[in-house]
Amino acid sequence: MTTAHSDRDARHHQRQDEIIAAARRCVRRAGFHGASMSQLASESQLSVGQIYRYFANKEEIVAEMVRRIVATRVAAIEGNTAAERLPQLLAWRQALNDDDDLLMLEVAAEASRNRRIADILADADRLMFDNARREVAAAYPHLEAARLSACVEIIAVLIDGTAFRRLTPQKAAAAQLLPLYQQLFHQLFETDK
Amino acid sequence: MTTAHSDRDARHHQRQDEIIAAARRCVRRAGFHGASMSQLASESQLSVGQIYRYFANKEEIVAEMVRRIVATRVAAIEGNTAAERLPQLLAWRQALNDDDDLLMLEVAAEASRNRRIADILADADRLMFDNARREVAAAYPHLEAARLSACVEIIAVLIDGTAFRRLTPQKAAAAQLLPLYQQLFHQLFETDK
Repeated sequence: MTTAHSDRDARHHQRQDEIIAAARRCVRRAGFHGASMSQLASESQLSVGQIYRYFANKEEIVAEMVRRIVATRVAAIEGNTAAERLPQLLAWRQALNDDDDLLMLEVAAEASRNRRIADILADADRLMFDNARREVAAAYPHLEAARLSACVEIIAVLIDGTAFRRLTPQKAAAAQLLPLYQQLFHQLFETDK
Repeated sequence: MTTAHSDRDARHHQRQDEIIAAARRCVRRAGFHGASMSQLASESQLSVGQIYRYFANKEEIVAEMVRRIVATRVAAIEGNTAAERLPQLLAWRQALNDDDDLLMLEVAAEASRNRRIADILADADRLMFDNARREVAAAYPHLEAARLSACVEIIAVLIDGTAFRRLTPQKAAAAQLLPLYQQLFHQLFETDK
């Protein structure tokens, strides 16, 4: 690859990064519908025409935004077995990234009326689920396939529910929640044998 | 109260119902920001001025919409002890009302940038939590106060997480989830003694 080529690639990636960063700010500030292509252009200091050179439409910008959020989440759980750290994270309602959680909430709200956004959300969930399933399978090889999926689904429910509830004041003491979550995870990963 | 008075009251309530119904349709169709007062007026076949006679602003319409959703939810769990029906509802991801869940998702997304909406969401959550806490306390009088709050919080996490995950395809068999949820609730409501 020539230097001119790699320079162009670097500029291309930088522009994409700028557009995604602008999209995140727009959606957080004004919601999904408040973030129009023209507001996005103004926020990223590009013309609408320039943005279309990088993304075919707003849905594709959202798809890339979600892909990056998923990549962060997948990297965060890599090598971390659920039973060890999750009870802590849940009891103290710790977020990996608050902004990511709020952006996913916007995407979820929009998914109920926009087929393309629903597909983006479904793909993201499938990717995170399969990744978590692999991690849990490696850590608890004794779990059989159906039980493994059920365990990962309950973990996903707990993570998504906790992220949602972070929007309102916590009503139970974290120190009281911790042993209950620990017991719950212990039970999830034990086999009946 | 004269007949003229009660007629006027009945008309007043009917108008309020119509405005709330129109608001629900607008928010579902176009999101929180897509539901402007003028769209609301058009949807409810009233003038913007008429709507202001019933509600001071859009936030007050949302507050009333949320109050009604909360009332439905509170009525639904009244007399139903969690440990008996909840594992079924969670495993099969049954919704009390899909539209209510989606509207609450819109409200939650908006809560992160609108103080008044955040307060409405916090009040709703407080009311549902306290109500659920009373129900669980009546059914399991042996639970001490802090443990009771922690149990109700975990139930709330499971309910909110399940509602959120209803937006993407289910990845574990309900029949496999059911015994895990039953075991989990059994454990939650048992004391250590």
